[in-house]
Amino acid sequence: MAKKEKKQPRPKAETPKGFRDYFGTEVTERKAMLDRIAEVYHLYGFEALESSAVETVEALGKFLPDVDRPNEGVFAWQEEDKDWLALRYDLTAPLARVYAQFRNDLPTPYRRYAMGPVWRNEKPGPGRFRQFYQCDADTVGAPSVAADAEICAMLSDTLEAVGIPRGDYIVRVNNRKVLNGVLELMEAHKQPSWAEGATNNEIRGFDVEDAVLRTMDKFDKVGAEGVRQLLGEGRLDESGAFIKGVGLYEDQIDAVVGFLTSRAETNEKTLENLNQLVAGRTETGMIGVRELREIRDLLAAQGYEGDRIVIDPSVVRGLGYYTGPVFEAELTFEITDEKGRPRQFGSVAGGGRYDDLVKRFTGQSVPATGVSIGVDRLLAALRAKGRIDAASQGPVVVTVMDRDRMADYQSMVGELRAAGIRAEVYLGNPKNFGNQLKYADKRQSPVAVIQGGDEAERGVVQIKDLILGAKIAEDASLEEWKSQPAQREISRANLVTEVRKMLEQSR
Amino acid sequence: MAKKEKKQPRPKAETPKGFRDYFGTEVTERKAMLDRIAEVYHLYGFEALESSAVETVEALGKFLPDVDRPNEGVFAWQEEDKDWLALRYDLTAPLARVYAQFRNDLPTPYRRYAMGPVWRNEKPGPGRFRQFYQCDADTVGAPSVAADAEICAMLSDTLEAVGIPRGDYIVRVNNRKVLNGVLELMEAHKQPSWAEGATNNEIRGFDVEDAVLRTMDKFDKVGAEGVRQLLGEGRLDESGAFIKGVGLYEDQIDAVVGFLTSRAETNEKTLENLNQLVAGRTETGMIGVRELREIRDLLAAQGYEGDRIVIDPSVVRGLGYYTGPVFEAELTFEITDEKGRPRQFGSVAGGGRYDDLVKRFTGQSVPATGVSIGVDRLLAALRAKGRIDAASQGPVVVTVMDRDRMADYQSMVGELRAAGIRAEVYLGNPKNFGNQLKYADKRQSPVAVIQGGDEAERGVVQIKDLILGAKIAEDASLEEWKSQPAQREISRANLVTEVRKMLEQSR
Repeated sequence: MAKKEKKQPRPKAETPKGFRDYFGTEVTERKAMLDRIAEVYHLYGFEALESSAVETVEALGKFLPDVDRPNEGVFAWQEEDKDWLALRYDLTAPLARVYAQFRNDLPTPYRRYAMGPVWRNEKPGPGRFRQFYQCDADTVGAPSVAADAEICAMLSDTLEAVGIPRGDYIVRVNNRKVLNGVLELMEAHKQPSWAEGATNNEIRGFDVEDAVLRTMDKFDKVGAEGVRQLLGEGRLDESGAFIKGVGLYEDQIDAVVGFLTSRAETNEKTLENLNQLVAGRTETGMIGVRELREIRDLLAAQGYEGDRIVIDPSVVRGLGYYTGPVFEAELTFEITDEKGRPRQFGSVAGGGRYDDLVKRFTGQSVPATGVSIGVDRLLAALRAKGRIDAASQGPVVVTVMDRDRMADYQSMVGELRAAGIRAEVYLGNPKNFGNQLKYADKRQSPVAVIQGGDEAERGVVQIKDLILGAKIAEDASLEEWKSQPAQREISRANLVTEVRKMLEQSR
Repeated sequence: MAKKEKKQPRPKAETPKGFRDYFGTEVTERKAMLDRIAEVYHLYGFEALESSAVETVEALGKFLPDVDRPNEGVFAWQEEDKDWLALRYDLTAPLARVYAQFRNDLPTPYRRYAMGPVWRNEKPGPGRFRQFYQCDADTVGAPSVAADAEICAMLSDTLEAVGIPRGDYIVRVNNRKVLNGVLELMEAHKQPSWAEGATNNEIRGFDVEDAVLRTMDKFDKVGAEGVRQLLGEGRLDESGAFIKGVGLYEDQIDAVVGFLTSRAETNEKTLENLNQLVAGRTETGMIGVRELREIRDLLAAQGYEGDRIVIDPSVVRGLGYYTGPVFEAELTFEITDEKGRPRQFGSVAGGGRYDDLVKRFTGQSVPATGVSIGVDRLLAALRAKGRIDAASQGPVVVTVMDRDRMADYQSMVGELRAAGIRAEVYLGNPKNFGNQLKYADKRQSPVAVIQGGDEAERGVVQIKDLILGAKIAEDASLEEWKSQPAQREISRANLVTEVRKMLEQSR
């Protein structure tokens, strides 16, 4: 008896959880935006880099301490030779690896841009994906804040190049060093109020700093008064719960809140405010203010004034990570959120100076600064503002009336394509003509071409304006229909000319 | 006593084995080529698709039988919920998954193109990478050979669009069905000579078919006579070893060799040869020849004659995989191999009809046909033919003579960029001027701009033609040097005009 073959169950046709597929214009619109960004980066002297999507877990580094679970946060797998490999989770860690590896061949400073997918092994959630695009530009090996200023100018140019007009965005600049100075002021007091009697380890160092940074991060939400309470005794939140505060002394709180709220009407005034906060009190803070002033001056010399680039000490995002200047690009126009309420669009890019990433590999500190654009957010902004070209047009569809005259239909599309007109023959089963028009509709085809046997004999074709046809079907009066018929007969010889005319009308 | 912190060893800065990084023009040249390809695909009505780089191992399918080693051939890892995920190994398996998943929303036929990296878990070797680009176009849901003909025409247009002129390539077309007919003829004999007395299972079915296919694959290398020997008793190979043959009867061998060698001077004659081989003897073979004739006719009607598209039954690659028409694009010009010998460049793209990929998911057979371009090979061909734009030019480098006049230098690059000229300020340590020129050299900068304090006072700058400078340093006579100095002083106000003039001269 013949063995019965074991039947495999059918596999599920599903994008893995947290991943997605991009179709048609989703791909081409993003590509068009990235192309424009790359043009600006190129103009600024940045070179493309496409590093391997796969890195050794060792080189990615962030996950090294957790030796038992090397794939925490990344997608990782073990090679037969026991090495662990992982998908990159951003474009900065690979840059550090590449620069360390090729530093003798690369120019210094090394300006590079990179665009591509990155992967995060996170719990997927609504709008939260495990693969997404990043678009970065970084300058490695330039200690001067001129490099930071350049990134800010380039970010500004980039936003305008993709279609965000001046006035609809602002690049906000802060400096971690000023904050460091402010935190130094705290040190002068040695102990926060709540820590009286505690041992030194508990009250000094990262813990207080972290608490202050976390609290500053709430500035946008709770305002200066809220931050003041949270840095002091504490605060009742919206739900009525009491959030215990950091317990700083009043003058410590003044310093932090003074820093956060020092943004004034002009960059000059903001710098004055910051200077008053640190002058003669903290060397680090003074250096930080001097750097901000230098950035402001360099940018102003190139025409980037306060309407585009703003010194803003309330930029807190990333202050925990970066070591010097920090920048954030914010879109200032309003959109309507899912509940119909107006709100500001918010941040689409961020970056800053990080000086220690290459050191992990080489032992030598290498200064670096860069920016990362949130590709999906910027694309969403362009869509929200209607700055993306109208929905891309489908192809002209040449329908098939006589199956054995396929060569005739192919000739028609051949002529149309040769004239640069996107076109195709219907390649499904041509029996049901209705299906062919439904197909054209699904393709958002602007024009259908129809030629039956008698039309072929008479040397004519029918061309049908599908966009106008749809409009007429919806709401046109009889008058309009008569004056502008959606379908007309033309000479076969004039196919290209007449189709082009119809395409121009339907724009 | 304070605990001593355990020092982590430094990670190695290394691209993982079998992976590579792409720098500067390696990225942009490939991108330019893919952009041109996408334009042609778009013109033909194909839509972009970017599917997730990660698939479930189940959906990738090929690896399912090997349940113990799901990562054989792919990079795979297990999720916390026990599902296995993997990086895609090509762009066709994901297309089948996407079409099965979204078939109710997608138009039928669905024409799509896809470009992107794929990953293979193979032993890396010289020139053999574990991540590489593919560039595919497929039509799903079109049973007619008009779809295959369209792919051939598009492939031809694509090669010309990227810079392979007519005459330097040929698209060769074969049809698996003709071969199936030829194999049917063998069945009439029931048993090959060597199989007298063997049980049926050993002599029929895939084994003989596979042996014949494998032998046909050697046609390019050993020629018709060699194939004849290998299909018969056997053959002495170059090393003197005797390779046992398949052991077919003489008339069976005639059929296979007749098929392989039926290519004639014109497509019409080739089709006649094929027809003689199968007419009245095998229904499958006759259908196959009819399909080839249809493809030929459709293409000829659009002007794709035998100088571009050739019916060639010696195309064997892929015949084991595809179910109908098979195509291969071959570059016919000669290049010099690593040993200095001339050889034909060879294949850069291949494809064909495969009708069962979607069936795995849905149970319903869906006709599909498509082509995949070998991105790296085509790029290598363009480089070999000098069809890639001259080495991309680096930026104009504005050098820094006075550190505190950085704003002046930034203004200069600002003006140059605003005029569309790629430019940057030197951002490294400006102390050593020689280093700045070395940097400009490494960047392949065409022009350096120099302004010291006294030049600033006089309102002038020096501009230095670095390309001419390099030439003069190499071999120019004194006369030339005098008549065309590599460096000249210009008015600061004329910076953009003069730099542009110098750039045009140096092209």
